[in-house]
Amino acid sequence: MRDVCGEAGLRAAPPASRRAKNFEYSRMFSGLERSDPKISSTLSSMRVLGIDCGSEYTGFGVVEETADRKLVCRVNGAIKLKSGTPMAAKLEKIFADLTAIIAKYQPEIVAIEDVFYAINVKSALKLGQVRGVAMLAAASSGLQVAEYSPLSIKSAVVGYGRADKHQVQQMVTRLLGLASPPQPTDASDALAIAICHIHTAATTNRYAAVSR
Amino acid sequence: MRDVCGEAGLRAAPPASRRAKNFEYSRMFSGLERSDPKISSTLSSMRVLGIDCGSEYTGFGVVEETADRKLVCRVNGAIKLKSGTPMAAKLEKIFADLTAIIAKYQPEIVAIEDVFYAINVKSALKLGQVRGVAMLAAASSGLQVAEYSPLSIKSAVVGYGRADKHQVQQMVTRLLGLASPPQPTDASDALAIAICHIHTAATTNRYAAVSR
Repeated sequence: MRDVCGEAGLRAAPPASRRAKNFEYSRMFSGLERSDPKISSTLSSMRVLGIDCGSEYTGFGVVEETADRKLVCRVNGAIKLKSGTPMAAKLEKIFADLTAIIAKYQPEIVAIEDVFYAINVKSALKLGQVRGVAMLAAASSGLQVAEYSPLSIKSAVVGYGRADKHQVQQMVTRLLGLASPPQPTDASDALAIAICHIHTAATTNRYAAVSR
Repeated sequence: MRDVCGEAGLRAAPPASRRAKNFEYSRMFSGLERSDPKISSTLSSMRVLGIDCGSEYTGFGVVEETADRKLVCRVNGAIKLKSGTPMAAKLEKIFADLTAIIAKYQPEIVAIEDVFYAINVKSALKLGQVRGVAMLAAASSGLQVAEYSPLSIKSAVVGYGRADKHQVQQMVTRLLGLASPPQPTDASDALAIAICHIHTAATTNRYAAVSR
């Protein structure tokens, strides 16, 4: 497991209410409330673990939206799976590494890509195995899993649903103010998934606040 | 989780050598050695957990081949997954239940179905998630995973690779001397997978013994 971004700004585990099974973004991240500079500094931040599942590399990235709405990368990297290793042993490593990342970086939610097309049945089975174990790592740590289509992720980060991996990597680098692009692209894809969740939660909660 | 067959014949955990990561059936289950009645009673038995992965029901069955080559069912049943439950919670239940079954019935190996055709991509992803978690449950308990195609499983149990679920259920009932057919069919499919592994291991080891 390779990870970068440093550990600056690590904090204690969020309170139980923030790790609750039910989403409560509408109260926590209301866009109307946050736009008020008088109170924005007192609002909670949001920390998300994005996972890009793959049968060779599984990317991960923890992104935090701070109380003043800045996006900060806490860690990113990829779990490399040695070819020739039995699948069960690969899955064991993914589970152990993701569980360790969750314990260390304390995200409040896990976001993963929801893929259900453009690949064949054999690849889908392999990818599904990794996805299952990633979802289990989240659930075992008491975290919800949010799923986003590749179109939603690219639209949220690049503004164009058919963007390629290189474009996603460049935009992730700019949005998070990184010194160099995250490597491999599985890591930048994972960060993009986390950013997508933060954007989506903010939009949902703005809408919820307006509808009240 | 529903299980039947009783707990008769439960024994202590097999020694570490039998739970080793490397297969050593050739020495343990040599067909030539076993055919000698003078020593067959002193030979080890073999206990296999078969798992039939599914996104609604995940069947399981523990089959033991005793030292005198009888096939005995130690437990069988199915883990039912409530529709409407989030996938991550379903996977958490499957993992917990399978881990508990492994701890209680102490199989030496886990056998699962290797499916890679005849289903669409969406189903393959769902099935893959359950498979991944089942394989992780095995690996976390220090057990190897053996995979068999549906054709191999049906051929080993019914003698016909295109047999239907009802035929598999009937043959499993006869082979294991059960009072009634295992229910649901996911449970009988899981027992069939375990029986397939026992047959295959016996054949492999007979061949290995002859080749020596």
